[in-house]
Amino acid sequence: MREVAIIGQGMTDFKNKENGLVEMASEASLEAIRDSNTELEDFDAIYFANMASGVFNGQTGVASALADRISLLPADAHRIENGPASGGSAIRSAFMGVASGYQDLVLVTGSEKMTEVPRDTMADLLASLNHPEVEYKQGISIPGMAGMFTRLYMDQHGVTEEELAAVAVKNHSNAEKNPKAQYRGKSITVQEVKDSPMISDPLRLFHTCPVTDGAASLVLCRADAAKEYSDEPVDLVGSGQATDAQSLEEREDPLRLKSVEIAADEAFQMANLDPSDIEVVEIHDAFAVLELAELEAAGFFEPGEAGEATLDGKTSLGGELPVNPSGGLKARGHPVGATGVAQAVEVVNQLRNDSGERQVKNAERGLCCNFGGFGNNTVVHLLEANYE
Amino acid sequence: MREVAIIGQGMTDFKNKENGLVEMASEASLEAIRDSNTELEDFDAIYFANMASGVFNGQTGVASALADRISLLPADAHRIENGPASGGSAIRSAFMGVASGYQDLVLVTGSEKMTEVPRDTMADLLASLNHPEVEYKQGISIPGMAGMFTRLYMDQHGVTEEELAAVAVKNHSNAEKNPKAQYRGKSITVQEVKDSPMISDPLRLFHTCPVTDGAASLVLCRADAAKEYSDEPVDLVGSGQATDAQSLEEREDPLRLKSVEIAADEAFQMANLDPSDIEVVEIHDAFAVLELAELEAAGFFEPGEAGEATLDGKTSLGGELPVNPSGGLKARGHPVGATGVAQAVEVVNQLRNDSGERQVKNAERGLCCNFGGFGNNTVVHLLEANYE
Repeated sequence: MREVAIIGQGMTDFKNKENGLVEMASEASLEAIRDSNTELEDFDAIYFANMASGVFNGQTGVASALADRISLLPADAHRIENGPASGGSAIRSAFMGVASGYQDLVLVTGSEKMTEVPRDTMADLLASLNHPEVEYKQGISIPGMAGMFTRLYMDQHGVTEEELAAVAVKNHSNAEKNPKAQYRGKSITVQEVKDSPMISDPLRLFHTCPVTDGAASLVLCRADAAKEYSDEPVDLVGSGQATDAQSLEEREDPLRLKSVEIAADEAFQMANLDPSDIEVVEIHDAFAVLELAELEAAGFFEPGEAGEATLDGKTSLGGELPVNPSGGLKARGHPVGATGVAQAVEVVNQLRNDSGERQVKNAERGLCCNFGGFGNNTVVHLLEANYE
Repeated sequence: MREVAIIGQGMTDFKNKENGLVEMASEASLEAIRDSNTELEDFDAIYFANMASGVFNGQTGVASALADRISLLPADAHRIENGPASGGSAIRSAFMGVASGYQDLVLVTGSEKMTEVPRDTMADLLASLNHPEVEYKQGISIPGMAGMFTRLYMDQHGVTEEELAAVAVKNHSNAEKNPKAQYRGKSITVQEVKDSPMISDPLRLFHTCPVTDGAASLVLCRADAAKEYSDEPVDLVGSGQATDAQSLEEREDPLRLKSVEIAADEAFQMANLDPSDIEVVEIHDAFAVLELAELEAAGFFEPGEAGEATLDGKTSLGGELPVNPSGGLKARGHPVGATGVAQAVEVVNQLRNDSGERQVKNAERGLCCNFGGFGNNTVVHLLEANYE
């Protein structure tokens, strides 16, 4: 069990791109490799996170293609797919590769190209994350599921429309300060969220993430070699992952995100940390309600209390626990397979004190939570700055 | 770097199936778990190999779905995709997970459902394994590539039509003895191969693998615990993987399968073995010529000599080095994402002396070679019986 560090990061901007999937991946990868001061020939492996290159882009074997395009041959390369949590899964797989002692230096890259995909094709594929018999075939889409989840969450915890809207408003406000965010220059108000079109009552358009193109990359190495490459390595001190019942109706309590609870607990135990040790969080706000429910499941707030905390500014940039300083899925954007890697890129930059206008003060430890399906597969990572 | 053992195997038959992708995966998985004498709640992770569930079956998040169906919750689960070498990549990822010390007991399952996929959809997706600009867009399919490779190989090495045909004849003959093979009961002669329809001159129909449905599974654990579960564990003593240039025209010598050379070399070095130590081989005969070229690249024969050896019966069941006793991709069948796992299932059964009519005598060590793209990503594993 060797310890593992992150020594490089790179990311395309998350605006709609003309570049293809592998070209975006190449751009982010080369930026991360340059940032890590490593040599191409020293790489042992590529872990390529992507949800649906076949359906979205008519491409397969994209991990091998990336190895070719950026001259990492003959490094290993596979693609890791775990729906919208593909990025988290790729980081975890890379972590195991380095921890095993068989790999010393590896690249993790997530990339997804979605904006050219016909809307029906995309909606159908995303809906197939739901249970094929008891959900998908009955016509339940992911936003449909999110609508029902939001209704139940609001009812059970007395969460208000204003509290929900505050999540989106905060994340758009943060994205104003992120040059790579999809929705920079598009701040919104609580009233605008409340007036936005209804998608799946009570879920509104401005509660949901957009469709995005983009790629993000990390370079990981054995922690004991990290300072040979980088003056500001970030240790990957905790990794957790858990699955849950695919169908919501099979879960004891449909509001309880057990995969988040278990994955966070595993990561905290590995790191010997707890939520009070964390100064910055990137969390999977595919829908506004999920930011709240995941923050509670990961142990940052009691059930039902994250909404009020958000409205009070506790999770804003100047608050006690800044959440989604990048703008989150809502406003940084959500190229599905890239998101988990982009979350870690944001935390690395925060821990390096390299986040410009959106810098969280004195951030030494951060958490990333990447949520797959409708909560049936969650990956959590904990990162810690390893320098003065 | 903990050592890793295989303690269970399972496989559906490779006939056309009515079951879906996840149902086939469940069947193979539960068979492997029963075979391993383990308890469901002890599993840490699932590594699910699959090439194209989105395009072929309109499904995604299939690894999480498998965890749910076979009650392995809350084990980790991701899908590993590496084209036709997805199975090998999943075994390698699982190997790293256990070797790292973070996982003690893991399931590797490969599954692919292909027979209901429209032929054009499948041909197009497989062709996308080729380079998108200099190959795919010019209309080069995978069989087209194989035709050119076969012509060059025959010309350069003086390999005859009879030698090529002997590969297919041998593999169909072996499949006669494999109750799970797709083409059991369909033996063929050299003359029938030579008379079969031309696909891509000089490549004929009977030089190529079929379209198949099927799933295969392995259970891996830390080697020092293997005998708590199994009387006949098989050690995973070597693992190697390498990528090569995606476009054949960028390779120094288009006949040289460098990814096979490097992956085999890495696996042999890890195991401290060489080709002369191997008694049984499962190799990726998607096209007859590939069985010959891969055997040579992995070090079993000098370049150009595997064809004559095949015609002479050296790679037949009673020969010096039985190759593809299962029937290989040609006659056992090739459900793309499952193939790499099925190769290892065959070798495990051979090393356990549990292969019935197709048993290789005194087999103690075996090699599996899983070949992705047109040779731009190859995974090699070495297995060794760890019991008397």
